[in-house]
Amino acid sequence: MEFVAAPARLSTASATFEHDFAQRLHWSADTDAAIEQRVADILADVQKRGDAAVLEYTARFDGLQADGMAALELRQDELKAAFDSLPAGQREALESAARRVRSYHEAQKKANGESWSYRDEDGTLLGQKVTPLDRVGIYVPGGKAAYPSSVLMNAIPAHVAGVQDIIMVVPTPKGEKNALVLAAAYVAGVHRAFTIGGAQAVAALAYGTATIPKVDKITGPGNAYVASAKKRVFGIVGIDMIAGPSEILVLADGTTPPEWVAMDLFSQAEHDELAQSILLCPDAAYIDAVQREIDRLLPEMPRKAIIAKSLTDRGALILTRDMEEACAISNRIAPEHLEVSSSDPHRWEPLLRHAGAIFLGAYTSESLGDYCAGPNHVLPTSGTARFSSPLGVYDFQKRSSIIEVSEAGAQILGKTAAVLAYGEGLQGHARAAEMRLK
Amino acid sequence: MEFVAAPARLSTASATFEHDFAQRLHWSADTDAAIEQRVADILADVQKRGDAAVLEYTARFDGLQADGMAALELRQDELKAAFDSLPAGQREALESAARRVRSYHEAQKKANGESWSYRDEDGTLLGQKVTPLDRVGIYVPGGKAAYPSSVLMNAIPAHVAGVQDIIMVVPTPKGEKNALVLAAAYVAGVHRAFTIGGAQAVAALAYGTATIPKVDKITGPGNAYVASAKKRVFGIVGIDMIAGPSEILVLADGTTPPEWVAMDLFSQAEHDELAQSILLCPDAAYIDAVQREIDRLLPEMPRKAIIAKSLTDRGALILTRDMEEACAISNRIAPEHLEVSSSDPHRWEPLLRHAGAIFLGAYTSESLGDYCAGPNHVLPTSGTARFSSPLGVYDFQKRSSIIEVSEAGAQILGKTAAVLAYGEGLQGHARAAEMRLK
Repeated sequence: MEFVAAPARLSTASATFEHDFAQRLHWSADTDAAIEQRVADILADVQKRGDAAVLEYTARFDGLQADGMAALELRQDELKAAFDSLPAGQREALESAARRVRSYHEAQKKANGESWSYRDEDGTLLGQKVTPLDRVGIYVPGGKAAYPSSVLMNAIPAHVAGVQDIIMVVPTPKGEKNALVLAAAYVAGVHRAFTIGGAQAVAALAYGTATIPKVDKITGPGNAYVASAKKRVFGIVGIDMIAGPSEILVLADGTTPPEWVAMDLFSQAEHDELAQSILLCPDAAYIDAVQREIDRLLPEMPRKAIIAKSLTDRGALILTRDMEEACAISNRIAPEHLEVSSSDPHRWEPLLRHAGAIFLGAYTSESLGDYCAGPNHVLPTSGTARFSSPLGVYDFQKRSSIIEVSEAGAQILGKTAAVLAYGEGLQGHARAAEMRLK
Repeated sequence: MEFVAAPARLSTASATFEHDFAQRLHWSADTDAAIEQRVADILADVQKRGDAAVLEYTARFDGLQADGMAALELRQDELKAAFDSLPAGQREALESAARRVRSYHEAQKKANGESWSYRDEDGTLLGQKVTPLDRVGIYVPGGKAAYPSSVLMNAIPAHVAGVQDIIMVVPTPKGEKNALVLAAAYVAGVHRAFTIGGAQAVAALAYGTATIPKVDKITGPGNAYVASAKKRVFGIVGIDMIAGPSEILVLADGTTPPEWVAMDLFSQAEHDELAQSILLCPDAAYIDAVQREIDRLLPEMPRKAIIAKSLTDRGALILTRDMEEACAISNRIAPEHLEVSSSDPHRWEPLLRHAGAIFLGAYTSESLGDYCAGPNHVLPTSGTARFSSPLGVYDFQKRSSIIEVSEAGAQILGKTAAVLAYGEGLQGHARAAEMRLK
C-alpha cells in the first residue's frame, strides 16, 4: 500500500488564510460522558473497597490475574535485573540521558527553586520557604506506547526536588513487562513500583489503599480514562497538566537542509495520527523542497501510515511574508515544541513568547530534547503554553510564606491592617492587630 | 441571645485521640450534581451566545438589568472616583498595603522568577525563559463577602509578573458597588473591570465574548458556582487552586498573652461557620487561659454568632506532649495559616514542612499577613499545602525551555537519542538525530 503525506499548503497572503488556519488548528478533546461516568464509578469503588477493587479492575482491564497486591509490586531487585539484562548500548544511553536530565534539573532548582528571605526597614522578616513534596505518584503508560524516557522525565525532577517517596504505576497488559521501562525506573531511582494502570491506579494513588500509599501529587501521561481520573482527583492531590496530542512547529529561514526539517516533522507525526506538524517559512521554494523530501523519505519510515495520516489531516506548510510574521503566528499557536531552524536563531528567539520548548539552530532537532539534551520532554500542548510550563522541579516543590513581624513593625502594620479589616467588616482581624499595639 | 464558643478539647495522650482528631479535621466539599449541571449549561450557553447570554444571566442572578455590555464595564475614571471618595485613612491604608504587597512580590520574582541559562562542556546552551502571561482574569466576589484586600492580592502579583492585561470581574447584586473594591482595583492597576459574576463571568473570561476578552488564566475566590465553573474550564485556561474553608493553626508554647491567641482564633472563625481554628499547645493551664479569654471576649464581637458556631463545630484546643509533637501534628494538618506563637519561633520553624503561610512570633498576627505584611493572602486550604503554594508571581508567569545544541554536541547527543528512540520504536526520532551526525 502506498501512503501520501500531503500537509495543507497555506499562505498568509491568501484571502482565506484566517479561515483555513483556524480549521487546521482546531482540535478539541471531546469529553466522552460514558468514559466520565465509568471513571467516576471506578474512583468511588477504589475509594470504598481499596485493594480488592484494584485487583478486580486489573484482572478485568489488563488481563492480569494476581492472588494479592504483593504480586503486583515490582521489587527493586527486579528493576535492577531489568537494567542488567539490557545490551550495553541501551544501558549507557539510559545512564547518559539520566545524567544530563539530572544536571539540567539541578540547575533549574538552583536558579528558581531555593528558599529566600529578607528583612525590611522595620526589621520584619519576609520570605518563602521552598520544600519538596513528601510523596508523589508517577503514571507510566504500558502496552504499545511504553516510553522509558517518560520515566526519566517524571522521576528525575521529583528526585532533584528532594521527594523521598516516588511511587511508579505502570500497567502490564497480560503481565507483559517492558524491560526498558523497568530499567529506566531503576536508573531514575523510583522508590516503589506497581503493575497497575488506568483509572484504578490513579484512584489508588489519590486515596491510598492498604497496599498503595496515598500520594500528594500524580504526574505522567495516560489515555482518556487516566486523564479523566486525574481531572477528578485534582484538589485531593495535585496533578500536572492534562496532555493533548503532541505538536511541533518549525520556523525555518531556508538555511537548514530540507531533509532535516522533513524528518523533524515526521518525528512528531509518527507519535499519533492526531499529532500536529507545522512548518512556517517565508521562502516558497524551500517549502517545495521540504515537501519533496517528505515524499522521498516517507516510504522508508516504518510508521509511514501514521505519519501520512497525521501530516495530511493535521499538518501544514505555511508561507509567510517574512520571519517576523512567522514568529507572530507561532505565538498564536503557542506550540509544544518550537524549532527555530535558522542560521541566526537568537535574532528570532526574543520574539517568541509562548512555547513549551524552543530548539535553536539547525543542529537542535526536537528528538535530542525528547531524550537527552536535559530539559524535560513533558511540555504543555494544545496552546496551553500560553499559561503553563514544562514539567520541572517546581512541580515537585511547594512554597510556604514566612512572616516575622517585629514589635516595631507591628505598630505600623497593625494600624493599616485595622483600617482595612474594619472596612471589610472583620472586627476580629482588626482587634487582633490592635492588641499588638502599645 | 447568648453565644457559647466551645472548641473541642483534645489531648494527644488520650486513647481516643486519633479518632477524635480525624473527626474534627474531616471536611469534604460535597460536589452538588445539580450545581454542576447548571454550571455546565451556563458555560455552554455563554460559549454559544456570548454577550447576550451574559446579559441575561446577570439580569436573572444579580438582579442587574443592563441595555448592553457597555453598561457593565467599570471605566478607569469610575475606579479613580471611588478611590478619591474614600476617607484619607482608607486611601492611605490601601496604598500602604499595595506598596508592601508589591515589594514582596518583586522580591519573589527576583528570587525565583527570572530566566536563566548555562552552556555545558560541549557548548550546548540550556536554560529556561520566564515570561508573563498575556492576559488574566481576576474574579472578585461581590455582595456581603466583598474583600478589597483580595483585589490587591490577585492583581499585584499579576502586575509584577508583567501581565499587560488584567481583567477584573465583580458581581454587583442589584447594581450595588463597593467603593473599597473599586478603589482597590484602581490602586492595584486593574486594566479593565466588568460588573459580572458567577459561572457566566468565568465562562465569558474563558471563552471570550464580543465584549469580554478571552484570558489565559482565571484566579480568585468565589462561591460553589464559580468554583465548579473554574474546574470545568481548567485546561482551556489556567486556574488557581479551588479554595475550601479558611483555617488557622496556632502552635503556642504558652508565652504569648492568651487574649492575643483567643483573638487570632476569632479572626479565622469570623470568616465563616465552616472556618477552622485550632490551637496546639503542650501547656494545659495555658489552654485553659485561652478558653477563659474566648469566653470573656466573645460577647464583644459583632460576628459572635458565626465565631461561636465555627469554634464549637470545627475548632479544637489540643494538648500535646511537647512542642515537637505539636509540630508533627501541624504537618499532618498542613494548615493554610500557621502561627508559631512562641518566644523561640526559629527553633520550631525548621520542623514545619507543610503550611500556606508561617507567622513567626507573638507579634505576627495572621491578620497582618491578611492585609499588609506583603506576602499573598491567597493560600492553599484543606491540607492542599502538602502540594500547593500561595498565589504568587509564578502563577502569572510561564516557562519555556531553551535548547541550542552545537554541532559538536549533536554528535554526542545524537547517538544517545538514536539508541533510546529505536528502543521505543520511534524511527523518525532516531533518524532526525542521526541526520545531524557527520
